[in-house]
Amino acid sequence: AVYGARKMEDYGRFLALLVSALLVGFVSVIFSLVWVFHYREGLSWDGSTREFNWHPVLIITGFVFIQGIAIIVYRLPWTWKCSKVLMKFIHAGLNTIAMILAIVSMVAVFEYHNAGNIPNMYSLHSWIGLAAVIFYSLQLFLGFAVFLLPFAPVSLRTAVMPIHVYSGLTIFATVIATALMGITEKLIFSLRSNPAYSESPPEATLVNCLGVLLVIFGIFILWMASRPYWKRPPEENAKALLTTGGTPEGTEAESTMTDGGNADESDLRSNSEAARKQNLKLDEAGQRSTM
Amino acid sequence: AVYGARKMEDYGRFLALLVSALLVGFVSVIFSLVWVFHYREGLSWDGSTREFNWHPVLIITGFVFIQGIAIIVYRLPWTWKCSKVLMKFIHAGLNTIAMILAIVSMVAVFEYHNAGNIPNMYSLHSWIGLAAVIFYSLQLFLGFAVFLLPFAPVSLRTAVMPIHVYSGLTIFATVIATALMGITEKLIFSLRSNPAYSESPPEATLVNCLGVLLVIFGIFILWMASRPYWKRPPEENAKALLTTGGTPEGTEAESTMTDGGNADESDLRSNSEAARKQNLKLDEAGQRSTM
Repeated sequence: AVYGARKMEDYGRFLALLVSALLVGFVSVIFSLVWVFHYREGLSWDGSTREFNWHPVLIITGFVFIQGIAIIVYRLPWTWKCSKVLMKFIHAGLNTIAMILAIVSMVAVFEYHNAGNIPNMYSLHSWIGLAAVIFYSLQLFLGFAVFLLPFAPVSLRTAVMPIHVYSGLTIFATVIATALMGITEKLIFSLRSNPAYSESPPEATLVNCLGVLLVIFGIFILWMASRPYWKRPPEENAKALLTTGGTPEGTEAESTMTDGGNADESDLRSNSEAARKQNLKLDEAGQRSTM
Repeated sequence: AVYGARKMEDYGRFLALLVSALLVGFVSVIFSLVWVFHYREGLSWDGSTREFNWHPVLIITGFVFIQGIAIIVYRLPWTWKCSKVLMKFIHAGLNTIAMILAIVSMVAVFEYHNAGNIPNMYSLHSWIGLAAVIFYSLQLFLGFAVFLLPFAPVSLRTAVMPIHVYSGLTIFATVIATALMGITEKLIFSLRSNPAYSESPPEATLVNCLGVLLVIFGIFILWMASRPYWKRPPEENAKALLTTGGTPEGTEAESTMTDGGNADESDLRSNSEAARKQNLKLDEAGQRSTM
């Protein structure tokens, strides 16, 4: 009974955090639209500054917000009754959407630069941003090949999983850092005088707040992704295995960035300790912790 | 024997990573000095742009490099024979040095702005940078009160530890993101024309590379900090407890961002599993995983 109460309380905390993250992410997208439509001539695809404007909108919508959701999709408790392979397709699908939006948003910048004879790829923002898109695409391709296609041996999945998780979270953080550089650049370039950025006009305040929201969104997502007690439980996995006719084999690496519970959660912790042991016996290797 | 070989190999990997991180951090400091002395009139404390120049040098030396070392100081295998409380003093001491250097570097910017009638605190860089310094100072103060002073009960230490670890790593990542914004700002402001930033003069290339090095340094440090198999082993802790006359009490939260080994390390992993169990019995709560 006490354990049940703890579990409910923990579920409530997860939901509160999830709703906060979604809210912050949603408000970020709104802020990017207000920026672009209220302060900067809106959107179009004509080589003008309005084509450039797709860049912040698509990056914040796709490369930050959708990527953030893709990262925590395994953590949603109501998905634990779904098969693991379905969740992998959702994880990969959301990341594919994010990748496409990121690439389109880069095309918008290149076309805008070329139309206005502005050099490409000279800024630190462009260097790290392009590297992030390349590594993100590589990560998606390798993740698909190793974890979704049925060819990779268990030992390979187990070896790749910690790298997949760490590089995924690192790329996400790097994307947010790159967005902050982009905001800085764009505010300096578009607020040169009357008013200048340094005079703190409303546009500058709005977009600075957008930057702060992106950092808060990242902090929420990475916290949810790195709590071990919010992981998809392995039992469901085993169930899914049985229904799809797979056979449990080998052991599995604990591959989520993990950070044990606190005193209030000793019940929960010892439960997850038990689950981990069960997991070592039952689970298919490398399958559980794609997040 | 196989286990010993694995352990040696793992030690070698840790050393290789540590040397790489130190090298990247060291080269970053050198790059900041080359930037300031070769391209930007050097350093002084006179309200001129040379006073501003202390800002990047002190941030990269203190708030990035020294903070990075403070984060991984518990991971250095040759410190495992030292008492835990000594290591805590070193961790807190390095973070205190980093905090002082960060504050001095902020004073340099405020004095430079005030001397030249440039507004303060208008940019996203300044907002997030000031927030990072404030949270860093709070983190240091709370860490000292909870983990170094002998008054906090075990339950409090256990509850605070995961938050201490997560906010420490998050602040470190945010500091690097803020440095990237600062680099972007400074290159745009100081390379307006003849040459402009967009013409990619050598200074721009050097400082862009500095930004890339900071990201690589962060990736190395956070990887080392989040591998569970490189944690300070609990046995040494128990030994230290015995020699200082402390009594083992309670259980301890697993508080490092953890991400289990891969297939090659199954021996190591089962060893750390055993160590964790022993730890639950022996270790003093909240003491072990200050990193």
